[in-house]
Amino acid sequence: MSGSLRQRQKDDRRLRMIHAALELFDEHGFSEVGVADIAERIGMSYRTIYRYFPSKEDVLLGLVIEGNHAFLERVDERLGEGPLLVTFADAMTEALEELSERVGEDAIRRMSEQIDRVESVRARALLHSADMRDRLASLVERHPAYAPERHSEIHLAVEVFGAVSAEAQRRWRSAPPGRGSLADEFRAVMAGLPAVVPSSPEASA
Amino acid sequence: MSGSLRQRQKDDRRLRMIHAALELFDEHGFSEVGVADIAERIGMSYRTIYRYFPSKEDVLLGLVIEGNHAFLERVDERLGEGPLLVTFADAMTEALEELSERVGEDAIRRMSEQIDRVESVRARALLHSADMRDRLASLVERHPAYAPERHSEIHLAVEVFGAVSAEAQRRWRSAPPGRGSLADEFRAVMAGLPAVVPSSPEASA
Repeated sequence: MSGSLRQRQKDDRRLRMIHAALELFDEHGFSEVGVADIAERIGMSYRTIYRYFPSKEDVLLGLVIEGNHAFLERVDERLGEGPLLVTFADAMTEALEELSERVGEDAIRRMSEQIDRVESVRARALLHSADMRDRLASLVERHPAYAPERHSEIHLAVEVFGAVSAEAQRRWRSAPPGRGSLADEFRAVMAGLPAVVPSSPEASA
Repeated sequence: MSGSLRQRQKDDRRLRMIHAALELFDEHGFSEVGVADIAERIGMSYRTIYRYFPSKEDVLLGLVIEGNHAFLERVDERLGEGPLLVTFADAMTEALEELSERVGEDAIRRMSEQIDRVESVRARALLHSADMRDRLASLVERHPAYAPERHSEIHLAVEVFGAVSAEAQRRWRSAPPGRGSLADEFRAVMAGLPAVVPSSPEASA
């Protein structure tokens, strides 16, 4: 979050594009909407939109990518403070709460539904998630608190965090709108995790 | 595994197609190989190949899909016998060991490398995995041993199993060829899982 006026104006603009796109996708369906339609709705030229987003798929994935950046920044600040998975979950709930405050929980939900509805976008979202997991693992590996012999553990924690994210999103989407935030579902899933993981032989000995 | 002669002949044919395709992809790169080339290498008509596989992407994903079917069958046989995640891991290591015996560990590895190399195929493999997790969850939900109040737990176990699979594949691919099987990596990842999951408040109280 840069505080400069110029940056804030750019962020506001991005957000207006995303909101307009979500409205239009809801009204007409993703495939029926073009970048020119998004531009028209907010009185900008379509070249302006293209300066921010390479395609309408990218407009739809805009909030996901932004939320994930905020998440990585927060992980970076907290690394070494506790168990990795807890660090990830805390960073994500904070990033989500901030995003939700800024754009509204409803926008996040509508975006998530649109992504699921269009297979090509869903495939891109899955590739983006896989890429994020790689970046998250590299971030942790480079941190002085994690010695090379812990690299396998790091990757496993990253994958399990991916599992927590997927399940939190599933529960949040299947709950009626307005009932609990995505951040709350993250917390609930984290709390339920030990029950599905068989305890280690050492732990039960 | 149907025991009929006709079925075995079909299975053998499928396997010859997959092996020939893997060889050709290795030699020339995925994008340079057509279904006609696969057909030529094994002296079949390309129409025969199309009867088994809708596209060359499907030939490449053939072993993945087959392995996952065998996995689901084994899960179905074992449900209710122990913790879900253990059931999944046991079913998967068995299915992998059988597949590896039939086609060779090396073929599985080459396939996996090819899938990673081509983004469109990788996206399809990710969609297939997401679909498999849905089918796995439905399979468990329909089983009498799992009451509706356990549905959240089931979905979480399925997602964590997806994490275990991804990490087992990563480790196996980064190990030098010939060093340990994918099934062995599954076991190792399962054994390391408790260390990355923070213990529940109840368990530590």
